[in-house]
Amino acid sequence: MAKDKKQPRPRAETPKGFRDYFGAEVTERSEMLRQIAGVYHRYGFEALESSAVETVEALGKFLPDVDRPNEGVFAWQEADEEGKGDWMALRYDLTAPLARVYAQHRNDLPTPYRRYAMGPVWRNEKPGPGRFRQFYQCDADTVGAATVAADAEICAMLSDTLEVVGIPRGDYVVRVNNRKVLNGVLEVMGLTGEDQRAAVLRTIDKFDKVGEAGVRELLGKGRLDASGAYIDGVGLASEQAEPVLAFLTSKGADNGATLANLRAAIGTSEIGAKGVEELAEIADLLAAQGYGPDRIVIDPSVVRGLGYYTGPVFEAELTFEILDEKGRPRQFGSVAGGGRYDDLVKRFTGQEVPATGVSIGVDRLLAALRAKGRIGQEAAAGPVVVTVMDRDRMADYQAMVAELRAAGIRAEVYLGNPKNFGNQLKYADKRNSPVAVIEGGAEKEAGVVQIKDLILGAEIAKNATLEEWKDRPSQYEVPRDQLVAKVREILEGQG
Amino acid sequence: MAKDKKQPRPRAETPKGFRDYFGAEVTERSEMLRQIAGVYHRYGFEALESSAVETVEALGKFLPDVDRPNEGVFAWQEADEEGKGDWMALRYDLTAPLARVYAQHRNDLPTPYRRYAMGPVWRNEKPGPGRFRQFYQCDADTVGAATVAADAEICAMLSDTLEVVGIPRGDYVVRVNNRKVLNGVLEVMGLTGEDQRAAVLRTIDKFDKVGEAGVRELLGKGRLDASGAYIDGVGLASEQAEPVLAFLTSKGADNGATLANLRAAIGTSEIGAKGVEELAEIADLLAAQGYGPDRIVIDPSVVRGLGYYTGPVFEAELTFEILDEKGRPRQFGSVAGGGRYDDLVKRFTGQEVPATGVSIGVDRLLAALRAKGRIGQEAAAGPVVVTVMDRDRMADYQAMVAELRAAGIRAEVYLGNPKNFGNQLKYADKRNSPVAVIEGGAEKEAGVVQIKDLILGAEIAKNATLEEWKDRPSQYEVPRDQLVAKVREILEGQG
Repeated sequence: MAKDKKQPRPRAETPKGFRDYFGAEVTERSEMLRQIAGVYHRYGFEALESSAVETVEALGKFLPDVDRPNEGVFAWQEADEEGKGDWMALRYDLTAPLARVYAQHRNDLPTPYRRYAMGPVWRNEKPGPGRFRQFYQCDADTVGAATVAADAEICAMLSDTLEVVGIPRGDYVVRVNNRKVLNGVLEVMGLTGEDQRAAVLRTIDKFDKVGEAGVRELLGKGRLDASGAYIDGVGLASEQAEPVLAFLTSKGADNGATLANLRAAIGTSEIGAKGVEELAEIADLLAAQGYGPDRIVIDPSVVRGLGYYTGPVFEAELTFEILDEKGRPRQFGSVAGGGRYDDLVKRFTGQEVPATGVSIGVDRLLAALRAKGRIGQEAAAGPVVVTVMDRDRMADYQAMVAELRAAGIRAEVYLGNPKNFGNQLKYADKRNSPVAVIEGGAEKEAGVVQIKDLILGAEIAKNATLEEWKDRPSQYEVPRDQLVAKVREILEGQG
Repeated sequence: MAKDKKQPRPRAETPKGFRDYFGAEVTERSEMLRQIAGVYHRYGFEALESSAVETVEALGKFLPDVDRPNEGVFAWQEADEEGKGDWMALRYDLTAPLARVYAQHRNDLPTPYRRYAMGPVWRNEKPGPGRFRQFYQCDADTVGAATVAADAEICAMLSDTLEVVGIPRGDYVVRVNNRKVLNGVLEVMGLTGEDQRAAVLRTIDKFDKVGEAGVRELLGKGRLDASGAYIDGVGLASEQAEPVLAFLTSKGADNGATLANLRAAIGTSEIGAKGVEELAEIADLLAAQGYGPDRIVIDPSVVRGLGYYTGPVFEAELTFEILDEKGRPRQFGSVAGGGRYDDLVKRFTGQEVPATGVSIGVDRLLAALRAKGRIGQEAAAGPVVVTVMDRDRMADYQAMVAELRAAGIRAEVYLGNPKNFGNQLKYADKRNSPVAVIEGGAEKEAGVVQIKDLILGAEIAKNATLEEWKDRPSQYEVPRDQLVAKVREILEGQG
């Protein structure tokens, strides 16, 4: 069909690992981001939008090698006069840009600086099922506040946010742990060598997967994993491993019991005591604002991020069950996480600046709400479709939709080829239209319009006898000047 | 200060041509996008969000050369096994991705497909003052509708959108032209050679800048430009150039007069007659919906995009004056443009698919509203700041902000070092706080709080005598349980 045979046609494909979002997928996310921004704003956080592009130098983690710094990020080299400009990259999260922004603008920003940011980030990783190379993050951070009151505030805000977007109390819990307590535990164990500490941290990270017994084996001689491979252990003696296991399993019946268990686990370690003290303070501050352990709870089994953060660590989990792809019930799991990291801007300025924050996985949260049927209804409602019976009277049809829109009703004229009326109704069906409007020559002459309730019509078509169907109880003839009123009545009836 | 002297600190800088957006800059734009999406939705348009990254092959305009396809776009080569994967690029507009999406998903999408898209696009161009390499676009397009009713709808929607975001009727006008009329004019002139047609199109493009006399010179022998350089002309004889000038200046007292002038300009050209007919039909359709020439008008002097579009062309201009950087009044000018382009997806499928659409320059529109003082007040309001007089009673202060927030009032506790109370008030000032709350030991004992009206306080500080100042009429002592009520009363008084 193409005239020019020499140039092959380009493929119409999203790049590998990327996807398109349509209709309600987009509007539901926007609405959720708007709700979250509302909570963040009420807590005094200010919006920040940095650009998608940063210099690789500022991003930091991924410095250019000999050739091309594509370890995990999408990067390219700017062309300057000699064709050798700065390396640039797409941001891989919203925290690295915050560090750059704070270091750059710190003299103009208030201290502490509470900011929120929401938008896509990019990862140059192998895509997998449900794992994309562009996805949304939604972060709130407080920079420049050393007090754990800032951490407590983030936890309270996270709890409020989950409820505002539609997760009822009882269906979620925010768990709080503290890296300092773990440091105390490592001290008590006599682990001061960097290598061994790192090995223990890596092992703890597997607690979610392998459980208490698995961690015990991995801290000791090693473990046969599910695939049959033998994983070498850290090589600790059984008694030496005990404090770590005591730490991980120290959650008690209430925060008081948990804190007592932790105090036992950290022995005489000063840093450990400081960590427990912080947890106690966070629990007190939250209790004073009415956030009890039904919403926010101290839980040392939270290990995600313990390697990265330097103080309190938080994670929000949805506690209700959904069915997995094989139809088995499982807990929905984590939708947000964060913690304190006190060397945010040190790379740039040499000064330590305390910071704490949280990142909400918006797409996971949307998936949870969809799985529970809590969103998706309203956003999917299509427009009222005014059909075209006489293409010379397009102005009449346009006037109808203008009236409907002026009344706040979503409406459109069919703008395809109107010759085949069946195609128009098929179109209305594809658009999830609730109502179709018909005005042929006879109706025009009589000053009336036909209004078809497409939702009711579809139900009747499914269940009705032929007689009922012939009665067409889902179609109404009304005077032209009652168009808007009748459409509204039908829409309200559809709920 | 840095321990490791070998590695220099990274520079904390936005990449050249990029910028950060803070606070109200972000929220005002979000709010505008939300309002625009509301209008688009009411017109039956569906949201689409494609990824920022496309293959260079799909983007089309910028195919990879020998080395690096960085003409105008940010592009990089994916690493595959041999280090030679596909070329990828950041999208430079929202139309090229629409073409790819429609070609890819056309069997699942309704026809016609009305979609809107909003988000950043990237241009690898030399940045200039006020010109950035990442900026927002906000598009609506109808794909698969050949009728000019689709063009009329876009114009009506554009008009509605401007009013919804805060441009009152009378402060804007949507001008409509048609490339087919110009084609008719070129036919009448006997210009059929591609080179000469292209030269005339380029000349017409300068009409905005050089005016009627300038275009006349440039179509003829040439013209001395402002810098003193002589610009060669197209070389047409004076009579031959006449139809173009008649076309450009054919706007009459009303649409009827304009159409009559255009009919004269296109003589016997069939394509020209078709173009005039389309303009007449658009004007009729719009009039039937109440969009008169005070909002949407046929204006052949609109030349932007005539080279690109294939049918109707639209442009929205703000007609009020603002002061330029030198304090001189000038018209604000264009904030949106669009038109019909009937070969959108042909590259991919070989089939012609008619399409028409509009792109709103959101950042320009925001600048216009700011220049007129129509936005910027509410969004800039800072939070109520609860100060910390006694750091051991943080829980008391946190409880106060929790109460205020529960009442819908933006509030925060001061989380910096509380030792110096002056710093806390300076912080409140930097945050544009309307109210500060103070509860020292004495107040706590008496069961009261001090509430400071910072807006009134600032005014008194400016204008008051010492006596008035001493009376501190901007500070109130109320019982603790009247905290929320009093703060609300003050905020309402300020509002």
